[in-house]
Amino acid sequence: MDRDRKSRITIAVDLDEVTADTVSKRLVRYRADYGVELSQEEIRGKQIRDAVPLERKEAVEACLDEPGFSRDIPVMPDAQRVLQSLSTRFDIFVATSAMDHPVSLYDRYLWLQEYLPFLTDRSYVFCGSKRILKADFLIDDNPRNLEMFSGTGILFTAHHNIYERRFTRVNDWEEVAAYFERVR
Amino acid sequence: MDRDRKSRITIAVDLDEVTADTVSKRLVRYRADYGVELSQEEIRGKQIRDAVPLERKEAVEACLDEPGFSRDIPVMPDAQRVLQSLSTRFDIFVATSAMDHPVSLYDRYLWLQEYLPFLTDRSYVFCGSKRILKADFLIDDNPRNLEMFSGTGILFTAHHNIYERRFTRVNDWEEVAAYFERVR
Repeated sequence: MDRDRKSRITIAVDLDEVTADTVSKRLVRYRADYGVELSQEEIRGKQIRDAVPLERKEAVEACLDEPGFSRDIPVMPDAQRVLQSLSTRFDIFVATSAMDHPVSLYDRYLWLQEYLPFLTDRSYVFCGSKRILKADFLIDDNPRNLEMFSGTGILFTAHHNIYERRFTRVNDWEEVAAYFERVR
Repeated sequence: MDRDRKSRITIAVDLDEVTADTVSKRLVRYRADYGVELSQEEIRGKQIRDAVPLERKEAVEACLDEPGFSRDIPVMPDAQRVLQSLSTRFDIFVATSAMDHPVSLYDRYLWLQEYLPFLTDRSYVFCGSKRILKADFLIDDNPRNLEMFSGTGILFTAHHNIYERRFTRVNDWEEVAAYFERVR
C-alpha cells in the first residue's frame, strides 16, 4: 500500500502548538500553580520559560515531563477537520520533536489515536530532529525545525514566533486549508 | 549545528534485530514460557509468530507490549563499536518502527541512552513508516522497510530474511564497517 502511494505529495505537521494547543494547557497550569495569569501580552515574541520569573523557569518546563501532561491537551481549532480533509488528497505525517520529554512518548501516541483517528499510526513520527524528515511540506511553529527541513517549510503562528519573517506563514488551520487548495 | 552538518552523509539504522538483538531475548523468553527451545532451524526463513504452534502465536507477539520488555534487550555484537566509529564520519540516526508496540517507546528511549551513549537523542526516530526517512542509507532487517525507503537500502541478515535477494546484504556489524569503508 505504501508503495502505491509513493507519488502522493507528503505533508508533515508538527504536534505542539500546531495540532495540539499546548500553550492553552500550559497557561491554565500556570494559573493553577501560581494563582496569577500569564497573559498573551507577556508571552508575545518569547518562549514561556523566558516570560516567567527566573525562579519559575525550571518548573514551567518540568511539567511537560509529567506522565499524563501530554495526554489531554486540547486539539487546535479546525485541525481535525482540515487534516481529515487534507488526508484525502495528501499523505499526512504528524512529526513531533518528542525526545526532550521522553516520558510523554506514550501519551502522545494515545493523544494521536484519540484526536486524529482518521490517521493510522503509520503516520506518527517521534523524532529528535526534523532534519530526518522526507516530506514535501512541513507545517511547524518552530523556525529551527523549518531551517533544517529540506522541503517547503510553512510557519504556523505561535506566540513565540510572531517576529519571524523568513517563512511563509499561516495563522490558523483555515489558512492551512486555503494554502493547500492551491497545491495540486 | 544541524545546519553545518547538512552536507554529511546520513545513515539510518534500524533497532530491532540490527542494533538490538531482539531475537535472542525472544528465544530466551520462549524457553521460559514453554519449557522448550525454539531452534535457529525452526525460525529459519520466517517470523517467530509463524514458527510457533498456532495457540502460542498471540502470546509470542504480546510480550513485546509488556512494559520493560524492550528495556534490557542485548545489544548486537560489535554494533556499539562500529556505530561509534561511523558516527565520526557520518550522521547516524536510529530509526525504529515502534508504533506497533507503543508501550515500548519510553523503554526504547532509555535503551538507546544506555547502549548508544555517543549518540544524542537528536538521532532517535520512532516512526510508523520508514517512508518518511530522509537519509542516504538505511540498514534494516525488514525488506518492507527497505522497499519504501528512498535512499540506498542495506539488508542486515536476520533469521527471517535469509531468502531475500533484492538488496545488498550485510551479515554483521563487521560487514557494515567494511561496507562504509568504501563510502566517502
